[in-house]
Amino acid sequence: MGAIIEKAQAAIDKVDQLGDLAGKIFTDFDRERILHDAAHAETLVANAPTPLPLAGLLVSVKDLYDEAGKVTSAASLLLKDRAPAARDCEIIARIKAAGAVPFGRTSMSEFAYSGVGLNPHYGTPGNVFDPDGIPGGSTSGGGLTVALGLVDIALGTDTGGSVRIPAAINGLYGFKASRLRMSGDGIHPLAKSFDTAGPLARDLETTIVAFEVMAGIAVPPASAGKGGALRIGVPVNAFTNDLDDRVKRDFEAICATLRAAGHDLVEIDLGFVADNAVLNKILVSAEAHDIYANDFAKLETCGDPRVLSRMRFADSLSLQDRCDAYARRTDVIARFNAALADVDVMIAPTLAMMAPKISEVEADFDRLNAMMLRNTSYLNLVDACAISLPVPVAGENAPAALMIAGIHGRDFAVLDVARKFDALLQS
Amino acid sequence: MGAIIEKAQAAIDKVDQLGDLAGKIFTDFDRERILHDAAHAETLVANAPTPLPLAGLLVSVKDLYDEAGKVTSAASLLLKDRAPAARDCEIIARIKAAGAVPFGRTSMSEFAYSGVGLNPHYGTPGNVFDPDGIPGGSTSGGGLTVALGLVDIALGTDTGGSVRIPAAINGLYGFKASRLRMSGDGIHPLAKSFDTAGPLARDLETTIVAFEVMAGIAVPPASAGKGGALRIGVPVNAFTNDLDDRVKRDFEAICATLRAAGHDLVEIDLGFVADNAVLNKILVSAEAHDIYANDFAKLETCGDPRVLSRMRFADSLSLQDRCDAYARRTDVIARFNAALADVDVMIAPTLAMMAPKISEVEADFDRLNAMMLRNTSYLNLVDACAISLPVPVAGENAPAALMIAGIHGRDFAVLDVARKFDALLQS
Repeated sequence: MGAIIEKAQAAIDKVDQLGDLAGKIFTDFDRERILHDAAHAETLVANAPTPLPLAGLLVSVKDLYDEAGKVTSAASLLLKDRAPAARDCEIIARIKAAGAVPFGRTSMSEFAYSGVGLNPHYGTPGNVFDPDGIPGGSTSGGGLTVALGLVDIALGTDTGGSVRIPAAINGLYGFKASRLRMSGDGIHPLAKSFDTAGPLARDLETTIVAFEVMAGIAVPPASAGKGGALRIGVPVNAFTNDLDDRVKRDFEAICATLRAAGHDLVEIDLGFVADNAVLNKILVSAEAHDIYANDFAKLETCGDPRVLSRMRFADSLSLQDRCDAYARRTDVIARFNAALADVDVMIAPTLAMMAPKISEVEADFDRLNAMMLRNTSYLNLVDACAISLPVPVAGENAPAALMIAGIHGRDFAVLDVARKFDALLQS
Repeated sequence: MGAIIEKAQAAIDKVDQLGDLAGKIFTDFDRERILHDAAHAETLVANAPTPLPLAGLLVSVKDLYDEAGKVTSAASLLLKDRAPAARDCEIIARIKAAGAVPFGRTSMSEFAYSGVGLNPHYGTPGNVFDPDGIPGGSTSGGGLTVALGLVDIALGTDTGGSVRIPAAINGLYGFKASRLRMSGDGIHPLAKSFDTAGPLARDLETTIVAFEVMAGIAVPPASAGKGGALRIGVPVNAFTNDLDDRVKRDFEAICATLRAAGHDLVEIDLGFVADNAVLNKILVSAEAHDIYANDFAKLETCGDPRVLSRMRFADSLSLQDRCDAYARRTDVIARFNAALADVDVMIAPTLAMMAPKISEVEADFDRLNAMMLRNTSYLNLVDACAISLPVPVAGENAPAALMIAGIHGRDFAVLDVARKFDALLQS
């Protein structure tokens, strides 16, 4: 038996030891298929003329990515009985060709429409630091597969923070690349003007190589020699207000470390982003609404009422409201790009608060969901790219989570800064 | 009599010697007011504690900017009898406070809606190199006031190229800053999601100082010391295809000069911008349509039929078409920003062809207007910033026109490169 099959089997054994938790992490866990794919990867890797970038890595798949012969259900009951996908979506095909083994379909907020990770159909797992704390969503199962060491990489999607939030909560790296950098073909949408696929992993280099394979591009090597001090934007009037005590303390400590390392931290006023946050609500609900409008009657009985209510918000919108929102979003993106024109990147806490308990969110969903999504979704609104890094904090179990963001298209700059800061902040 | 009043009087005398041409350049030329404003500037400049940035400069005003007591007519008959503006718009207030003298209201394409500069109400002036050639629009009168040496600066607006086209045709500098950089208050709109105010001048530094005053910001001084070779994007599949012979030859010569100076010219595929050019047509006509929809019956008799027909294009659009176009524009902007992420700026010929004759355009308006607007309007579509520089060509009267462009917000980078290239290309 080859090393990749062995590795896959060992991971399957781990899943089998999770008991009930496994059913909250995966919507579909097909042992036979995993071993078949592992055998295939074994052959591919053995015969590759040059080393494959994801050789033998296990990759969990959010239940939005089409895999040939599997149902893409978005962890909903509505889509559970649809026809299986005829083929692998482009990203799945790419990771397989790179030597990876797809390892189960992971659960999520229904239709990917919320940032906390509650799922009434499969149950909501706790996070890796707290069995009663929310896992973060919408890529809730994906985050746990990586955090628990079942896989090397989770494939997620991020419409308002769905890669970065579970990464932040579970001490992982999560990269939301610039939208349209990767093929969205065969990935079930939530809101096309906001959706991005993206990876979660336990270390930065694995996150970057996953991005390279998913997008089919090469990230330039670290610019170790180049320059020294970076010009880093630190937002005011958005992102950094109303933080909980620990997040505030951690972020201030991170800023102090960056300053001490010689980087230039400059305030940038992003109040206009906060002032326009309603555009996210309008446009995401409008685009989601159009996907499911014919299913609302059915969703009344089989859907998550929290998700349905968010989609139904668009019932109250006229076409003119939508048009105006699109036009205003263009202005907000423009203003954001101008605000960041003179800095290398911006930084912010990924989350405004530490992960609340599942029971707290069940009792106060709208407020807590909005708060969990706040910082990440600002960056979806302005169509930016961003990575969330875990930052160890002395005396704390759960690390802090730092978001490094750039305007659309500056993925390489963001990843380059991430390499520098990661080296600085892990020590 | 002070120097500023003398200068204004001398310029008034020049206008009085223009004969019929003056009526094609100005929609309103109020000698008394100009002298009054000159006297005011004289006092202001004399008493300023530090030198004023536009001290004693004469500035023509496109007939879209509100000036207290003057009618803003957009060179139309429709708006000719509206109430005079109650106050100066912000940009007029700023240039006056900077020591400048507003010098006449300049004619333009009706409502600013075309790039060639035809105006049936006031007549169409020739350009500074050819009395039978189009002046370029829509800031047609403004371009001529600068090119004829009547004023130092023209205030224009640019929705699809209306600053850069007359600049290019008349051998001037014209800067379309990033939209929203300057206040649009009190400037009559054509299409809010595309409109930008901007200056035209005979030299680069005057253009830059005008921008600084208009926007109320300081452009960093030239980065003479910093770096050397720039990474310059040269588009393929848009901007550089279907050029007329002279434009093609000139642009190749400019590229050769830049390469010889050590700059790195790299191809960037902007075919997707060309493929989405219809979004400009849809959205500009939709937004203009909404401003004038109640006046269409009146415009049937008193309007320029070429302009009315462009606005009426939006009659055929549903709200859904508009919504889709806004959403698609966001994607095109995102792709443009990503395409330019790894270059300092991009360059292109400002115009795909040399200025045609007025009679040619009258006979073949749609095709030639579209061709004149092509390269400039691509950059409005992607919400970029761009400057047009004149580049002398041996043996030719009219210079070539080079556009240097950056993504939204990179105004300073574009102007910095413009300084470098201007020094290189003027010699």
